[in-house]
Formats: sequence, C-alpha cells, structure tokens
Amino acid sequence: MSGAAISSGPAVAQRANLRRSNDVPALIAAAREGDHRAVARLISLIENDDPKLREVAAALTPYTGKARVIGLTGAPGVGKSTTTNELVRALRAAGKRVGVLAIDPSSPFTGGAILGDRVRMQDHATDSGVYIRSMSSRGHLGGLSAAAPQAVRVLDGAGCDVVLVETVGVGQAEVAVASLADTVMVLLAPGMGDAIQAVKAGILEIADVFVVNKADRDGADATYTDIQGMIALGDRAAGEWRPQVVKASAVRGQGIDDVVTALGKHESWLVEHDQLRARREARAAAEIEAIALGVLRGRIGSLRDGESLPALAARVAAGDVDPYAAADDLLAGLEP
Amino acid sequence: MSGAAISSGPAVAQRANLRRSNDVPALIAAAREGDHRAVARLISLIENDDPKLREVAAALTPYTGKARVIGLTGAPGVGKSTTTNELVRALRAAGKRVGVLAIDPSSPFTGGAILGDRVRMQDHATDSGVYIRSMSSRGHLGGLSAAAPQAVRVLDGAGCDVVLVETVGVGQAEVAVASLADTVMVLLAPGMGDAIQAVKAGILEIADVFVVNKADRDGADATYTDIQGMIALGDRAAGEWRPQVVKASAVRGQGIDDVVTALGKHESWLVEHDQLRARREARAAAEIEAIALGVLRGRIGSLRDGESLPALAARVAAGDVDPYAAADDLLAGLEP
Repeated sequence: MSGAAISSGPAVAQRANLRRSNDVPALIAAAREGDHRAVARLISLIENDDPKLREVAAALTPYTGKARVIGLTGAPGVGKSTTTNELVRALRAAGKRVGVLAIDPSSPFTGGAILGDRVRMQDHATDSGVYIRSMSSRGHLGGLSAAAPQAVRVLDGAGCDVVLVETVGVGQAEVAVASLADTVMVLLAPGMGDAIQAVKAGILEIADVFVVNKADRDGADATYTDIQGMIALGDRAAGEWRPQVVKASAVRGQGIDDVVTALGKHESWLVEHDQLRARREARAAAEIEAIALGVLRGRIGSLRDGESLPALAARVAAGDVDPYAAADDLLAGLEP
Repeated sequence: MSGAAISSGPAVAQRANLRRSNDVPALIAAAREGDHRAVARLISLIENDDPKLREVAAALTPYTGKARVIGLTGAPGVGKSTTTNELVRALRAAGKRVGVLAIDPSSPFTGGAILGDRVRMQDHATDSGVYIRSMSSRGHLGGLSAAAPQAVRVLDGAGCDVVLVETVGVGQAEVAVASLADTVMVLLAPGMGDAIQAVKAGILEIADVFVVNKADRDGADATYTDIQGMIALGDRAAGEWRPQVVKASAVRGQGIDDVVTALGKHESWLVEHDQLRARREARAAAEIEAIALGVLRGRIGSLRDGESLPALAARVAAGDVDPYAAADDLLAGLEP
C-alpha cells in the first residue's frame, strides 16, 4: 500500500462528507474555495427549509452583495438553456466565475442535482468556475419566493462574479423570480406571438434587455420591430432606462457578444443612476417580507397540527362562534 | 297628494339607504326577510374588506349552518351558467330559496352587481326567492379564499336553503373554491378532453357528482365512459363515496332531475356517514386559517408602509445583517 493511497483515503471521505455535512462554517469555507459539493449542500439546506438555514444566511452575509445577478426568462422553446450555455461560455472566457440557478416553480421535484442535470450544460461540467443548479419549490415553507433569493446568496457568497437566474416561463411566478435580478433579460423567438404575450404577462415592465433569439429564422425581423415598437409606446420618465433589443442565434453562437454588451450597458446605467442600490434594497425588502410571512405561516401550521384549530373549527361549524373571532383566538395562541 | 304616495316616500328612501347602509343588524334583518339589496350590501362589505366585516360575521353566526352548499365547476364552455339556471329552476319548483355565488378569481373586477348581471340568470330576476351574485377577489386582503366563505355565510344566514357556488374554471383556485361546498359537482362536455384535464387538475379527487352536459352531442357517450373508467380506476376505501356520473342537456332542460337526484344521494350519504359535519369542520378550519393569515399579512403590510422594512432592507442589501435576522426584527415589531 503506497503513502499516496493512504493519504487519499481521508480526502475522499471528506468529499463524501461534504454532501451531507451540517458543519456550516466548513461548508462555506469549501464553497468559497470552489467546491461544488459544498455549494450543492448549502442550497439543499435552503431548499429543504433545514433548521441550519438561518446559520447559513448569517454566515454568508459578509461575503454577499458582490455578484452581479442576471435574470433570464422567456416562453418554453425560445432557447433559454442554449442562451444560458453560450452566455456562460462568454463570461468564462472573460475570466468570470459563474453560477446558474435554473428555477422551475411548477415542478414539485427537480432539485438536488448539481452539474450534468441538463444536457446542454454538460459543456461546463468539468469547469470548476461554473456552478449549475436546478431548483424547485419543494420543501421550503415560503416557496420559491423565499428560497430562490437565498440560493442566489449562496452562489454570491461562494464567490461567483455573475449569477444567472433562469426561469421556465413568463407567468406571474416567473416575473416575480426574474425580479430578483439586477438586470432582467427576456428571450423571444420569431413567430411565437411572444411580443403580445410579453405585454400580457407584464414582461415589458420588467425587461431590461430583450433578446430576439433564433434570429436566423423567418419572422425574426418582424419580432424585433414589434418589440421595438412596444418599447417606443411605453411610458418612461426622463432618465429612465430604455430596454435594449438584441438579435442572437444562441445555437450558432451568434450575437452573444451583443447580449453581453447590452448587459454591460445596463449595469453601467444602474451604477450611474444609483439604481443598483435601489434595486437591491427593494429585493431585500421583498426577501424579508417573504421570510416573515413564511415564519408566520409556519406558526399557524403548527397550531393546525395542535389542538386549537380543530376545536375552533368545530365551534365555527356548529355556529357557536364566527370565523373572525376564531381567527383572533388562533392568533392569540401564536408566540409573540 | 294621496296617502299612499306619502307612505311610499320613506319606504323608497329606506330601500335606497339599504344599498349603502352600515347598520349591520338592520341589514341582516332585511336580508332574512328576502331583501336583495341588503344581501348585496352585506356581500359588498365582505368583498371590500370593510371594517364592519367582523360585525357582519358575528351577527350572522346564529343563522348559519342551515344551507346546503353545492359547488359547481368545469372548463369554460361546458355550460355552467345554463346548468346553474336550470338547477335554480328545479330547486325553486321544489320550494327552496336559492343563492348563487358566481366566482371569478381571475377578474380583478366583476363584483357589485346583483341580479341581471348575467343574461341567462335574467330568468330569475323577478323571483325574490333567488339571489344571484358575482364575486371577484377585488379588495379583500385574504383574497377569494377568505372572502368566498363569508359570502356563502351571508346567503346561508339570509335564509337560503341551497347555495350554489359556481366557479369559472378548473385550475387550482377553482378547486380550492369548489372545496367550500358540501357537494362538488363537475361539469364536462363531449370532445373537450375534459376527462384528462380533470385528472390533471385534481378534479377527480374533489368531484362528488360529474355531469356530462351537452349529452345530445357526438362524443357524449365516450366522455361518459371515459369518466366512469377513471372513477373505476380510482383508489377508494370501503364505504367511501363513489362519484356519480349523470348525463344532461341543460340547454334543453334535459337530465336536470337526474342531477338533482344525484345531489340528493350524495347529501344522504354525507349525513349517514357523519361526513357533512366533518366536511364543514374542515371548511371552517380552512376559513379560520385564511382569515388568520390575512390578518398577519395585513400587519406585515402596515410595517412595510412604516419605517422598519426599508431600514432593514437597506441593512440587508449592505450586507450588515442577513434576511432571516431582519425578518425576526420585523416580526418582533408586530403587535402580539
């Protein structure tokens, strides 16, 4: 038995341990050194609403606020994964550490996997400067609105320069999640009626950069003109950001530099107009509110499992007390 | 000027006043005597989350728990309004007082109108034994999940023997609202792929009675067979209710008696198995929880408008404190 083989024993054991560790300081130290398993474990703790959650958040705090957070959304089929993949490639080429958080609010279970959970992302599977993570709303009491910002915080705290938050659709949940970002990028594709859908879903209000992907296809120019027209019609105060529209063909790797340039322009604008701070404070406020509501919901839930709610419900059903008075009774039982 | 004309003066004034009155005991007394305007006013107070809401709930309590509550749901186009109309006709012929609550969770504004707000329902516009009301989630802090049960309570307290709660779709919100009912009726129509949609939306779990409407159309037998097959495949414990399937053509007034018979069967089953009490207690528990959460959300909202949340958000954004600690601070500011 060689010395090398002996010394590799504890290292392997340590790696395996990180996947299940509850040692928050060790996990954060490892995550900051680029260990994917530690990042995965920290996000799992959040996803599962683990009691360690608060310790994770507290321990991460000194390291957060450095990453640039870019939200990426669009209807299914517009090429979000491909675009993310190409963006990661471009950012890596510029020497940035990149985190990707792929959010699927509709799925009760997608999480857990890190790296290799999506075929396209395999390109970056061996690159230690890229973290890729799918996330669902499974487990977390406050839902994705409370969990997603914490996952961003982990990637930020782990030293990512850029965090890409990719969501699956353009519904309300997606709008909410996309608004976690410093910059919101909306993908469109020709001939999908996306411009109109975007208006309906309120996307026009939240998008900072539009990407007309699949620009080599018929109708790309029409989509480009449509969205430019809608931006021109929008109400904007003087000095307000005017959304950029960029054409790309992610699958051919074309136009990605223009996307990066547009993102950079928006970042400069945010900084110049003190909007980065404003956006991040608004984000923090939403985050705090979501956590507070989750805590309260949890407290009510624990009352539900106890004696008080069934007893109160029986009295309401019997017509002895009205539901508002019963709710007051229930709330009086909450710890202050 | 005749004596009759003089005495009609105050009566007219009193009627007009009821529409805007805040005199809860007078409104409830008038509602119990069959005054539509008083019922309308009481439901408006609920819909607008009026401070009088609690007084209304308390004053109604002695009169509630008598009405049979039937939920009616199904995809757009299956004939919900027509079926409701025919059901009202059949129930009126049997001497029942009937309340109809048409719920549209997606609409920010449909409420306010009573009678004549839907063309089909005009049939009953001059019948004082029928109340018809549209309701949206406008205004009410707890949303429809908190407001709808209170509106049912008003109709119940006003002396309706049957309250029909009709919802617009088969999404999650509709499932939630339909589960307000003692008996849930799901409408299907041939050739709409409804059977599969029903399974997806979880309708199969909540339906007590299926009505295959438009039974004169091609494909009605196939839909009937499909849904029977799915019921046969479903897991049911011994003694559990097996959903009934009825064919009807509401627009021709056909099959409505069979629907009424199926509803009656389910009612008998509920009573025999002590499930009516169980369902109503579960309903009351959900109601109390929704109100309690609404109250808490309101308290957090008032903190949001104050100083504490912006200050905490600024500290979180600056990396001075983590969002969980900030949420604790926020909650510490809630009145107990």
